[in-house]
Amino acid sequence: MQKDLYPSRKGENTRIIERKDPVIHSESRDKGPLSHKDLDFYENNGYLLFEKMFNDEEVEIMKKELDSTMKENESRDADDVIKEPGSNEIRSVFETHKDGNFFQELSKNERIVKVAEQLLGDQVYINQSRINFKPGFKGKEFYWHSDFETWHVEDGMPNMRAVSCSIVLTDNYEYNGPLMLIPGSHKWFVSCPGETPDANYKSSLQKQELGVPDNESMKWLVDQAGGRIDRATGPAGSVLFFECNTMHGSAGNISPYPRSNVFFVYNSITNKLQEPFSGKEPRPEFVANRENVQPITPISGDISSRIKK
Amino acid sequence: MQKDLYPSRKGENTRIIERKDPVIHSESRDKGPLSHKDLDFYENNGYLLFEKMFNDEEVEIMKKELDSTMKENESRDADDVIKEPGSNEIRSVFETHKDGNFFQELSKNERIVKVAEQLLGDQVYINQSRINFKPGFKGKEFYWHSDFETWHVEDGMPNMRAVSCSIVLTDNYEYNGPLMLIPGSHKWFVSCPGETPDANYKSSLQKQELGVPDNESMKWLVDQAGGRIDRATGPAGSVLFFECNTMHGSAGNISPYPRSNVFFVYNSITNKLQEPFSGKEPRPEFVANRENVQPITPISGDISSRIKK
Repeated sequence: MQKDLYPSRKGENTRIIERKDPVIHSESRDKGPLSHKDLDFYENNGYLLFEKMFNDEEVEIMKKELDSTMKENESRDADDVIKEPGSNEIRSVFETHKDGNFFQELSKNERIVKVAEQLLGDQVYINQSRINFKPGFKGKEFYWHSDFETWHVEDGMPNMRAVSCSIVLTDNYEYNGPLMLIPGSHKWFVSCPGETPDANYKSSLQKQELGVPDNESMKWLVDQAGGRIDRATGPAGSVLFFECNTMHGSAGNISPYPRSNVFFVYNSITNKLQEPFSGKEPRPEFVANRENVQPITPISGDISSRIKK
Repeated sequence: MQKDLYPSRKGENTRIIERKDPVIHSESRDKGPLSHKDLDFYENNGYLLFEKMFNDEEVEIMKKELDSTMKENESRDADDVIKEPGSNEIRSVFETHKDGNFFQELSKNERIVKVAEQLLGDQVYINQSRINFKPGFKGKEFYWHSDFETWHVEDGMPNMRAVSCSIVLTDNYEYNGPLMLIPGSHKWFVSCPGETPDANYKSSLQKQELGVPDNESMKWLVDQAGGRIDRATGPAGSVLFFECNTMHGSAGNISPYPRSNVFFVYNSITNKLQEPFSGKEPRPEFVANRENVQPITPISGDISSRIKK
């Protein structure tokens, strides 16, 4: 068996490990659609924001599809429907890229897939997806975390060769709890203390308790960034790509403006999931993702809705 | 007895009442130190921010005094020491403008007193004061509120003729939970539902439950402002003056950067407290403030510390 390059939750104290994987793979530098400048920014900072990659009409279609998917799932009480702690309101619906629906088609859209392919230097598949709705007035904070830490420890993602793509469907302002990112934090792995219980995924999306970096490591990462914390603000239709190990979080949202987005995680086809080093059993869909995945064939950039007019 | 111009917490639903008091009093327009431009901004928006009104050396002195005041109060369990909900950490110490200490001297400093006098068009006294410490990583949000609503209903402040002065002792960034303000919101009074229990002040500073504007009113106020929410960001030493009825709040702070500030509330000497219209008994110091207050005689702009070097 392969060596665990990124051990975490072994009951030890926090420690910071240098990243072992490349960020940009050299063979993809000249492939396009991204310029060298874009690639350099991503390599140095761990994210890349495109303003209005989708136009207003496309955003309207996506919003309608998001609303109807939320409604369809209102009465379901399943692992892939995440509700607000202490309430019945839906915050996220997972696995929206399946069953031939609108979001599956969107996830194959060449505008985003080709960016993901170039960033990962490989063909890609969707490892997970979700749509998120963060209400105004009472949107909860999401504390700092690296997605990779969880995906590695709980789901069995071996290497850092995945990228998250967030299509924002509402204007993101400084004051409605935008995603915050620590520039350059993807170059370091914060190995966290604690141990993962069985089926941790059932509760961890409501309230994080494991994989939480300590204050000292967070301070260190921000210091490495020269004290900067960046925010993904921009108009609806903007798309944020961020590296799987980029430390990110968001404050609560007391503004009247809700936030919603579509979220796809593209993983390199050569970075398929395996049994986690912890030996714990992951979500069933991630066991399926160990073998049973095919690379995406990108489809034309046209966004159309299945909604009857 | 005077009529209650701003009834609230009468058990009714929320309603929005037009402000009955002037914001700027005409006789003070040409008095200085503020320009007409400053006064117009304050009149229209309900706040005014001065970058670095105090220099770095002065900020250092204030920070040391704040630290030592916090330490002196660590083991005290009194109404004027506010701790984090569910912990023993100090968040605020009240009534710091008394007993001839450093903060009393600071509260009389002519740089800020003369601004307060011009904004209120009158001589002023300190109705309350506090120093605040909001830790990094886990700073709690403070939901939208108008200070005047509480001061009127609970403490017996008859009219809108007071101004809060916040001296920020740490750099305020977009990402460490800065104060957010709704421009123009001071022109409207949001009459809140519910009824105030006796001695509400003992718990309300830890967790707000009364005097909370409803979502519809908040949306309306932000719409009136053209969808804008402003943030009081700026370097340490900046001073924010905001009108007693300006709707404000702050998101939580998950950044590593703590925030601290000194907070003085200047009230017009002709707006002295009276028995609240609710008939409830306010904090003892506010009963004393009904008669027993003298206008401040501003003192020279020099900031010096009592700390032994």
